[in-house]
Amino acid sequence: MTRLLRSWVESANSKTCGFPLNNLPYGAFSVDGGPVRCGTAIGDFVLDLHALESARIINFGGTLLTGAWNGFMALGRDDWNRLRSELISLLKEGAEAADSLEQYLVPMKNADLHMPFTVTEFTDFYAGRHHAFNVGTMFRGRENALPPNWLHIPIGYNGRASSVVVSGTPIQRPHGQLKGPDDEAPRFGPSQRFDIELEIGAIVGQPSEGPISVAQAFENIFGYVLLNDWSARDIQAWEYQPLGPFQSKATATTISPWIITAAALEPFRVPTPEREKPLLPYLAEPAPMLYDIMLEVGLTPEDGQETIISQTNYREMYYSAAQQLAHHTTSGCPMRVGDLLGSGTISGPEKGNRGSLLELSWGGKEPLTLDTGGTRCFIEDNDTLTLRGKAAGEDYIIGFGECAGKILSAKNVP
Amino acid sequence: MTRLLRSWVESANSKTCGFPLNNLPYGAFSVDGGPVRCGTAIGDFVLDLHALESARIINFGGTLLTGAWNGFMALGRDDWNRLRSELISLLKEGAEAADSLEQYLVPMKNADLHMPFTVTEFTDFYAGRHHAFNVGTMFRGRENALPPNWLHIPIGYNGRASSVVVSGTPIQRPHGQLKGPDDEAPRFGPSQRFDIELEIGAIVGQPSEGPISVAQAFENIFGYVLLNDWSARDIQAWEYQPLGPFQSKATATTISPWIITAAALEPFRVPTPEREKPLLPYLAEPAPMLYDIMLEVGLTPEDGQETIISQTNYREMYYSAAQQLAHHTTSGCPMRVGDLLGSGTISGPEKGNRGSLLELSWGGKEPLTLDTGGTRCFIEDNDTLTLRGKAAGEDYIIGFGECAGKILSAKNVP
Repeated sequence: MTRLLRSWVESANSKTCGFPLNNLPYGAFSVDGGPVRCGTAIGDFVLDLHALESARIINFGGTLLTGAWNGFMALGRDDWNRLRSELISLLKEGAEAADSLEQYLVPMKNADLHMPFTVTEFTDFYAGRHHAFNVGTMFRGRENALPPNWLHIPIGYNGRASSVVVSGTPIQRPHGQLKGPDDEAPRFGPSQRFDIELEIGAIVGQPSEGPISVAQAFENIFGYVLLNDWSARDIQAWEYQPLGPFQSKATATTISPWIITAAALEPFRVPTPEREKPLLPYLAEPAPMLYDIMLEVGLTPEDGQETIISQTNYREMYYSAAQQLAHHTTSGCPMRVGDLLGSGTISGPEKGNRGSLLELSWGGKEPLTLDTGGTRCFIEDNDTLTLRGKAAGEDYIIGFGECAGKILSAKNVP
Repeated sequence: MTRLLRSWVESANSKTCGFPLNNLPYGAFSVDGGPVRCGTAIGDFVLDLHALESARIINFGGTLLTGAWNGFMALGRDDWNRLRSELISLLKEGAEAADSLEQYLVPMKNADLHMPFTVTEFTDFYAGRHHAFNVGTMFRGRENALPPNWLHIPIGYNGRASSVVVSGTPIQRPHGQLKGPDDEAPRFGPSQRFDIELEIGAIVGQPSEGPISVAQAFENIFGYVLLNDWSARDIQAWEYQPLGPFQSKATATTISPWIITAAALEPFRVPTPEREKPLLPYLAEPAPMLYDIMLEVGLTPEDGQETIISQTNYREMYYSAAQQLAHHTTSGCPMRVGDLLGSGTISGPEKGNRGSLLELSWGGKEPLTLDTGGTRCFIEDNDTLTLRGKAAGEDYIIGFGECAGKILSAKNVP
């Protein structure tokens, strides 16, 4: 187990701080409505990497003089490693640069955080064993819960990149076609079963043209974010046959603002769970490629009292992001820098580990009780849903920050 | 019915030329490996619009000094109309500019054509009544052929923008997971049932944030291209439940190189077919928004002898692109300049009108006979598939050019 790397930024050395020197997550920030700049989080501060590259303290071909990490990602793994090691040198306890760098530290509380990268295309998977089983049981019964392909293919579908937003962006309750099982015809109205999906998003940092191996796919992933794939279950139920979810998933997908690099997560690698059926060789995992990341979901109604409604772990996934990315390329599909892959909903084996309200309320039949006494089957207007994640070392944690969104009432439509 | 607009470019005045002055389609071309430039087709020539904007003969804020039409599209409808009317003035018979413009005409045979725009995101629909019925009959029987939502929703799914290529790009036969109905487990290998889908692609030329009306959607569409949504039927059959097609559609989607503008197609507007069930009001078509576009598919084996395997018409679609785009925005999905919407496979009522080999060979059970005596159920290596389209006026035609691709044998995979 690796130990805390101590920094001269004192707040980064606390055992409870999510942004120790071991983390160095990459984001985009602004201050007082100024331009959006690349930065890294350290303790209670954001280190302004735009300013560091401007001052030629670091040099990455100007890619950090932008408001998004795509250009830097495109540089490739050698530069990914170089930036991390240069930042560690600059920020570690006793570093000579400490005095001269203080001017580039922006208090986190003054920073507005933005999308850390431009999402090129967005793919969402369905790779959580417990989630697939729960949802399948609700829709097709326990005997037919898992589709026959599920243990062979990391099932995925293309999502909508234009709808990916950063944590904190309010989410308008969507309209759509709704049809209950007893309705003769569909009607058009606001979704009544609006839901979350607790996921981890993997960010493709290097392009590929033809099929790539799982090992290569792992190398091509730059980092990870929390991801909430907002889902309108009633729109989904009526639209999704035969070609999959479409408008039910297109309202918004929220990601956390800090890209947690694969490098920072390296000490937390774990293997995928035991295979229930052998995988085809092209999907074999050559080394542990999942991560031990503790996850939780909080629901905060308008009264401001949060209830933690779910706790689970990324290691519950049946397929790793590397396996998903390798599968994504099998047909020759070109992948590009900035592609975002959602893991699929991460549910654990117990009721309290479920990553969606659909599962937590068992299709709306078993309302959740909130700590303050209210109940929920699905999201109500003005509820805020917050995902959190962390990987815990012996004496430090790697925090993911928050992935939050407040649901606003539906607007009238034209 | 509008008449031919005569041009001083003589070859544009022929009744059989697809690029008369009435058309003025927009593309991107290069000569001898030089830079990619914006151009328009007129008769047997490409008019170099990069050069025209460089020479300040036209002025569109430098958007034509690029190799793609996205910047120009973003300018909006007033500029779309202005470019078209300025080009008509410059190119019409008797125009004073004729002598000075000849230097900007590049013989079409010397021009290499490229992707005319950068595809932002790609959505594919399933809006052909005959296609949906045919495919549904094969998979679920005649009684259950149309899914219950089909007459209410323009069913669509998100495709993969990175795999869209321009006509002429060779297509490698893909690998994927294959499992026959009697196989115990899937295997990994080259697709044996590789297919075409004859479609028209609509290009979104203006962005939108929230839901928009069908009328607004129609205004936001810049133009149309032929589109072949290559499909691996065997990969599709095994992967598509429950979340829709994924790798089966990700090998490539080919588009024709010329954007045929909505303005050029204006005289050919026709209504969608009679509704079999009433549509929800948000999908009502306020005016005819389909087009009368004759379509055909040719299959050319290695021997070079083409057989026309299908002839149909875009007016067979049950939903127009404007209806599809309006539906696409219902949940709040932001649309962006350069989004591409595939119509869905365009099949007509008769066997000879079917827009896919899946339908033409009825799932591989009724092989097609080629003019030279060979047979086909699906595409064989070294076959070239070519889509063609035209709208016919009284004394002129609006040609779409060709949308062609040759299938190369599968490559070994890692």
